[in-house]
Amino acid sequence: MKKAALTTRSDHVCHGGRLGFYEHQSDVLGLPARFAVFVPPSASAQNKVPVVHVLAGLTCTEETFFIKAGALAEAAKLGLALVATDTSPRGAGIAGEDQDWDFGTGAGFYLDAVQQPWASHYRMGSYIAQELPALTEALFPLDGTRRGIMGHSMGGHGALVHGLRNPSVWKSVSAFAPIVHPTAVPWGQKAFSHYLGTDQALWRQYDAVCLLEDGKTHSSALLVDQGMGDQFLERELQPWHLKKAAENAGQELRLREHEGYDHSYWFVQSFAADHLQHHAAILKGL
Amino acid sequence: MKKAALTTRSDHVCHGGRLGFYEHQSDVLGLPARFAVFVPPSASAQNKVPVVHVLAGLTCTEETFFIKAGALAEAAKLGLALVATDTSPRGAGIAGEDQDWDFGTGAGFYLDAVQQPWASHYRMGSYIAQELPALTEALFPLDGTRRGIMGHSMGGHGALVHGLRNPSVWKSVSAFAPIVHPTAVPWGQKAFSHYLGTDQALWRQYDAVCLLEDGKTHSSALLVDQGMGDQFLERELQPWHLKKAAENAGQELRLREHEGYDHSYWFVQSFAADHLQHHAAILKGL
Repeated sequence: MKKAALTTRSDHVCHGGRLGFYEHQSDVLGLPARFAVFVPPSASAQNKVPVVHVLAGLTCTEETFFIKAGALAEAAKLGLALVATDTSPRGAGIAGEDQDWDFGTGAGFYLDAVQQPWASHYRMGSYIAQELPALTEALFPLDGTRRGIMGHSMGGHGALVHGLRNPSVWKSVSAFAPIVHPTAVPWGQKAFSHYLGTDQALWRQYDAVCLLEDGKTHSSALLVDQGMGDQFLERELQPWHLKKAAENAGQELRLREHEGYDHSYWFVQSFAADHLQHHAAILKGL
Repeated sequence: MKKAALTTRSDHVCHGGRLGFYEHQSDVLGLPARFAVFVPPSASAQNKVPVVHVLAGLTCTEETFFIKAGALAEAAKLGLALVATDTSPRGAGIAGEDQDWDFGTGAGFYLDAVQQPWASHYRMGSYIAQELPALTEALFPLDGTRRGIMGHSMGGHGALVHGLRNPSVWKSVSAFAPIVHPTAVPWGQKAFSHYLGTDQALWRQYDAVCLLEDGKTHSSALLVDQGMGDQFLERELQPWHLKKAAENAGQELRLREHEGYDHSYWFVQSFAADHLQHHAAILKGL
């Protein structure tokens, strides 16, 4: 594998596969960017494997899912590669970008900002949609024709939005406790008003519920898990909007509600294997 | 469950069981102390379950194993409870205790110090051996007659030492990349000289290799996993001493050497399920 474009921050054998943490110079972001890749033991140049991109939530990084979700045993078993990205650009140098935990660094919302001072660097939308898949598929034994996307919270929003916007590129989609309707809740309204300005038509393009309302659907079922003890359920997550929009759009949705589970990775790890199985079933045609 | 003696820092449903992070006033340590307990879904007052105590390594806390080892799915499946402790007392107020990463806070070595200023609070040996099992077995549905111990690095040292010193109490023992012969390596020599002084007979009581040499054995096999790409293999771990001492003592040892694996929790998580199965087989008589 050619990895000259990358700096390897660390790499590790794990569950017989290889987990690496990398940094590269991102053209889209105009900054150095970090990501991580797990390549299962069954992968090789002659046997490219399906890949699931993993998007984390507010305050997280490209490390969070790998450290906390306990998912690598199942990924190794299923022969799935995983790619995890950071949650925002880092080092843009914008005044105040580190001030709030739910906006700026750690809170890129997987969109392309159009308002300055954010528009120059806060372009995680294109980074996720194009640059990171292209880069990782050039350097690792990943089969880009079998690519899925999943995420947690803000990352669940990212997975649903990217999946619905480009269903031919993201063939399988799942989310843990996603922000399904950011245009209608405080986290989303705060971020979108700064990143996107006042153009409500643009807001709708980064909102899973609005995308479904506007005719975007996915040919495979969306798997969504939600803890019913989630501290953000009523204020920020509101999965019932997704349920209604999916019903109206004829979108198959497997929305599972889990009594007692909260918003943490203790919840995510409890169902991570199920999600990987969902992706494997679609991507491997099982 | 009576939990009046505890402050619950957080608790979470996870894999159908319950994971809680607690603080209490430790009599043995003379300080507040933190620990964490995972109770699998099968446990109840009428069905007390076997319990494995988990000891972490240098710089870690009671959170580390639970966050990084990805072990709760298997513990839930096997019906094992897990108890994780901190790696040292906290807040003793000894000058310099926070200065080094391999000594003082985060580096209690699971022993009772006899040298001042450490002897008043650095008593993780008795805390692990008596206070924590008694406390957790009074408050949670744990069967203290079926109790195992495992650990990583310094915690692997702790597991082997406590298991060999009290085999009737710790019925199953395993370790990841343990410090097997602390009296002969820099980490151990630094810690023991401060905590224990110059009495070599006392040093030997906290060294797994010396305990085997001095006639201590365990009736069940010791399971030890070691990564052969471990950055501390030659200098601090030296598993060949354990192999030789076990052979000489007639102690059954399953020492597994894993090519390419390093010292991190990416290694631990790769074999954590095996360790829990080892404990379940002994504790549940499978």
